[in-house]
Amino acid sequence: MTVDLARCLAEAYDIALPHRGQGKVADYIPALACVDPNHFGMALALPDGTMHVAGDADTPFSIQSVSKVFTLALALRRVGSSLWDSVGREPSGSAFNSIVQLETEHGIPRNPLINAGAIATTDRLIDGRDGDAVIEEILAFIRARAGDEGVDIDLDVAFSESETGARNRSLTHFMDAFGNLRHPVETTLGVYFRQCAIAMSCTQLAKAGLFLTMDGRDPRTGEQLVEPHRARRINAIMMLCGHYDNSGEFAFRVGLPGKSGVGGGILCIAPGQGSIAVWSPGLNEAGTSLVGAIALEHFAYAAGWSVFD
Amino acid sequence: MTVDLARCLAEAYDIALPHRGQGKVADYIPALACVDPNHFGMALALPDGTMHVAGDADTPFSIQSVSKVFTLALALRRVGSSLWDSVGREPSGSAFNSIVQLETEHGIPRNPLINAGAIATTDRLIDGRDGDAVIEEILAFIRARAGDEGVDIDLDVAFSESETGARNRSLTHFMDAFGNLRHPVETTLGVYFRQCAIAMSCTQLAKAGLFLTMDGRDPRTGEQLVEPHRARRINAIMMLCGHYDNSGEFAFRVGLPGKSGVGGGILCIAPGQGSIAVWSPGLNEAGTSLVGAIALEHFAYAAGWSVFD
Amino acid sequence: MTVDLARCLAEAYDIALPHRGQGKVADYIPALACVDPNHFGMALALPDGTMHVAGDADTPFSIQSVSKVFTLALALRRVGSSLWDSVGREPSGSAFNSIVQLETEHGIPRNPLINAGAIATTDRLIDGRDGDAVIEEILAFIRARAGDEGVDIDLDVAFSESETGARNRSLTHFMDAFGNLRHPVETTLGVYFRQCAIAMSCTQLAKAGLFLTMDGRDPRTGEQLVEPHRARRINAIMMLCGHYDNSGEFAFRVGLPGKSGVGGGILCIAPGQGSIAVWSPGLNEAGTSLVGAIALEHFAYAAGWSVFD
Amino acid sequence: MTVDLARCLAEAYDIALPHRGQGKVADYIPALACVDPNHFGMALALPDGTMHVAGDADTPFSIQSVSKVFTLALALRRVGSSLWDSVGREPSGSAFNSIVQLETEHGIPRNPLINAGAIATTDRLIDGRDGDAVIEEILAFIRARAGDEGVDIDLDVAFSESETGARNRSLTHFMDAFGNLRHPVETTLGVYFRQCAIAMSCTQLAKAGLFLTMDGRDPRTGEQLVEPHRARRINAIMMLCGHYDNSGEFAFRVGLPGKSGVGGGILCIAPGQGSIAVWSPGLNEAGTSLVGAIALEHFAYAAGWSVFD
Repeated sequence: MTVDLARCLAEAYDIALPHRGQGKVADYIPALACVDPNHFGMALALPDGTMHVAGDADTPFSIQSVSKVFTLALALRRVGSSLWDSVGREPSGSAFNSIVQLETEHGIPRNPLINAGAIATTDRLIDGRDGDAVIEEILAFIRARAGDEGVDIDLDVAFSESETGARNRSLTHFMDAFGNLRHPVETTLGVYFRQCAIAMSCTQLAKAGLFLTMDGRDPRTGEQLVEPHRARRINAIMMLCGHYDNSGEFAFRVGLPGKSGVGGGILCIAPGQGSIAVWSPGLNEAGTSLVGAIALEHFAYAAGWSVFD
Repeated sequence: MTVDLARCLAEAYDIALPHRGQGKVADYIPALACVDPNHFGMALALPDGTMHVAGDADTPFSIQSVSKVFTLALALRRVGSSLWDSVGREPSGSAFNSIVQLETEHGIPRNPLINAGAIATTDRLIDGRDGDAVIEEILAFIRARAGDEGVDIDLDVAFSESETGARNRSLTHFMDAFGNLRHPVETTLGVYFRQCAIAMSCTQLAKAGLFLTMDGRDPRTGEQLVEPHRARRINAIMMLCGHYDNSGEFAFRVGLPGKSGVGGGILCIAPGQGSIAVWSPGLNEAGTSLVGAIALEHFAYAAGWSVFD
Repeated sequence: MTVDLARCLAEAYDIALPHRGQGKVADYIPALACVDPNHFGMALALPDGTMHVAGDADTPFSIQSVSKVFTLALALRRVGSSLWDSVGREPSGSAFNSIVQLETEHGIPRNPLINAGAIATTDRLIDGRDGDAVIEEILAFIRARAGDEGVDIDLDVAFSESETGARNRSLTHFMDAFGNLRHPVETTLGVYFRQCAIAMSCTQLAKAGLFLTMDGRDPRTGEQLVEPHRARRINAIMMLCGHYDNSGEFAFRVGLPGKSGVGGGILCIAPGQGSIAVWSPGLNEAGTSLVGAIALEHFAYAAGWSVFD
Repeated sequence: MTVDLARCLAEAYDIALPHRGQGKVADYIPALACVDPNHFGMALALPDGTMHVAGDADTPFSIQSVSKVFTLALALRRVGSSLWDSVGREPSGSAFNSIVQLETEHGIPRNPLINAGAIATTDRLIDGRDGDAVIEEILAFIRARAGDEGVDIDLDVAFSESETGARNRSLTHFMDAFGNLRHPVETTLGVYFRQCAIAMSCTQLAKAGLFLTMDGRDPRTGEQLVEPHRARRINAIMMLCGHYDNSGEFAFRVGLPGKSGVGGGILCIAPGQGSIAVWSPGLNEAGTSLVGAIALEHFAYAAGWSVFD
């Protein structure tokens, strides 16, 4: 049975479109608050290079927490399994920025996709290097995956993140107090705030995620970027922890590993099939793009890609 | 590429066999403590009726928490989405019997696969009926799925569960205090303790799980037992919450929805493919069968069934 | 400088009187909910036998948690310091019925004046005896202190307490699960619910508290009821933990060891000076009698009895 | 009945002396770790100017958390009751540096004597001023109370506190994230770390506490430093919260408002009577001077100063 993926994408876009403008745009920094809530884009990248797009697929947006997936891949590649000395691999059952579990578990965050865990992951990725060098590595990795040198950091966003980053500073100093930080707090946060401020379009993001659909191999360059079992690990973590306290609902509705960001972007990985990026700024109560989640649910259903049926 | 599933199962059994006797047998009730730790069985059931087995596949064991999957299916069938008024659908990030989250979240357990959530699910399944009638319904459902009238409750185990059930009584009264219990505590626990004490063999259990691989339809009888989206829901919950604080590790290693019990049994669902049951009493630190998890990891890898690569 | 205590009491009564009817009457059981909120009584008992009273000083009310002081004294007398194996002696920083700390601290409640701690104390007081015998001992102790055989249990209240006691049952089973209970749950709760349902007037209650002002000696009979250092312990615990999350405020405003109950009664101990009981059913947000706390604050100030200035 | 306070002090010193060297010296910074554990001093200051001393009463030590009492007094004097917008007045039931309650209670620490609460209090005391000016005010206040211009900050200690202050930085950023900080984190911590590093002898400390025994009036200068009800508030908070999770035990044993510091100092206030300072570096498990607590218990007993009997 062959599925017409282009049609699936178009239908999913049409079904979600009427919800455009619903939800609440992230407003904790001006650069996010002033984004037009009516944006809505989708892009599907297939391993053979085929792209299908809909709507504002080429408008760059702030990927925010979606960046955690890329730093996780890079950190695993750089420090291997020793990463798990610094961060766990289990769902947290708490809000994305909770500090309670961090106290109970002595400074080891639950997983690399909550804030504390992503900061710990970035800290390990730095690995004694200069912060600028590390952010360059992250950018180079993403640009190579997206096949687009235009991917860059929105420094306004990065600066605002740092300005309003009291909670993240608290989490980072807290891990430091438990000896779970290998670099100065501001070095690690300097990289973290900038990685969150990377701006990408759906097209770029979908391409950049393709290596996770192919057991860690970039289908464009043929390069094995991370070992197959590490790609599997990343996908499993995305499935279980990719949407904070909404991960169970997303797993049921979409049935694919995914990671959402408060900028309204979601990256979804269908192992062996393809990579889908959606973007629409209005968020549901759990901080996931409302329109994006609807679109992904319908696409996954139409394509028969949910791993749960 | 055709996979020889019989060979995959045999190989997985052989790889896991040397670990037999490792881990710690549950000892909180005598009936579990005295089980020979060297038992090890596997059974694979395919929708076409094919069965592959290895080791002690026909020895009955106490399914314990694996029973939560069946009561969840029955409760969803009986009360539909209103079940979610009584229990959530997200990972808990806590031990299987923690009461902390229950206080924070006003008596609504995180999901139907932790103890409090399973008790709330059983409470809803009772739905005003007599406890004996409900346990009969559960048994009849499982017997019909397994195609075996021999499935029954080990009353020694049930009695011991009740005797040592102080923690579960506490959880149940706690939910009652928040108005999240519809029947007397002992009525609900009477059903719950008995469902946990159901004894099944791997062969019976693998057959009984098949409907979850087929969008809720029993492939033997053709009967649609639960709606497709409910089967998907159950699978998603198993993937995210099936092994308490070890769910992330299991998702990575096995890559399939599963549910483990302290009796040493694990039921795994490969949607569209088949249902696998394993049993070996020695538990790892997270309370999952140590040998069983190794066997499932190798089987899923060999069969290419992990949904994450 | 001699203080006219009769005048102090009368003035405190007059100052608090306009607040009569404010606050919220406990409504979780009918027997409490239907009490007239306009009741207000005060009684001051001095070691020399002098009594000063105001308002409804001779109307019996449900002493509820004030009873915890008497069972604490009796338990310390019976089992001595071994009581502290079952319950701590530190403030809890949580609501009166929280179960969170109980999980963190493995079933040992923080202090004998929160519900779990009072239940653990009652459990130790039972000491292998029949529940009826223990409640008789408690009653006999209180009657002897009050010099009044009329003190009795309001069985309507006791029955309602048991009916609505899901939270307390949960706490008790929880302690049982940690091995911190020496009798069957219902035996211990049977005593606990009845001790909470003891009805006393302010006059009776003030007299009954006198032994705590006199280093554990009953000034009327001369009997040493508990050793001096145990009376000191009880007073210290009342000061630090007597009003749940309002203990700091009460210590500041009144400056005396005290214990409040949701029936609207408060017993206050001025070591070496006297014992004061107040009653008015309207409660402040922390569950302490609103009018009673105002009256006590003014009395302690006028009498110069606050230990903090 | 007249008590010979000089003899009481001498006896308490003699009784506690054999315990000298017991307990564990704080070792998180070198400047504290290298203090000789055999030091032991006591000083009693009476409102009439009389001083009684024993042992190393004139050796300066790091007062650490004892400083929180003075900044609390100064903050109350400066901003009045609005201080309670930033910090609570109830016992915490948690360790001195826990962040859990801070999350539950939205960035408002439980009381001014745990670390987070003391930092919030210092933040309010700053009140828009330069950090150096504030630390000068604190020093001037303490010097005036002690009648000794020699009181100063140990800058080695202050620097080390800042170096190892990850946990306190985390707490401070956390409060900042909830909007409960009015100055930059490092401004507030700059004052806080220096106030903790003030070095004083027992003699100086006992004199400095006298105003709290006299309803807020300095008996030497006659100056009303804080209003009487604020002195009462401070004493009540010291009684309920002065020794973290050991406050209940201290209240029972000593029966007086007190505040301990990890440098091994304790300041105790007997309202209307006098002020006692003790110092011995070995700490009990709760972080209170082991020898100091024994000495205070015996002194309070001999002097009949416990407020609980």
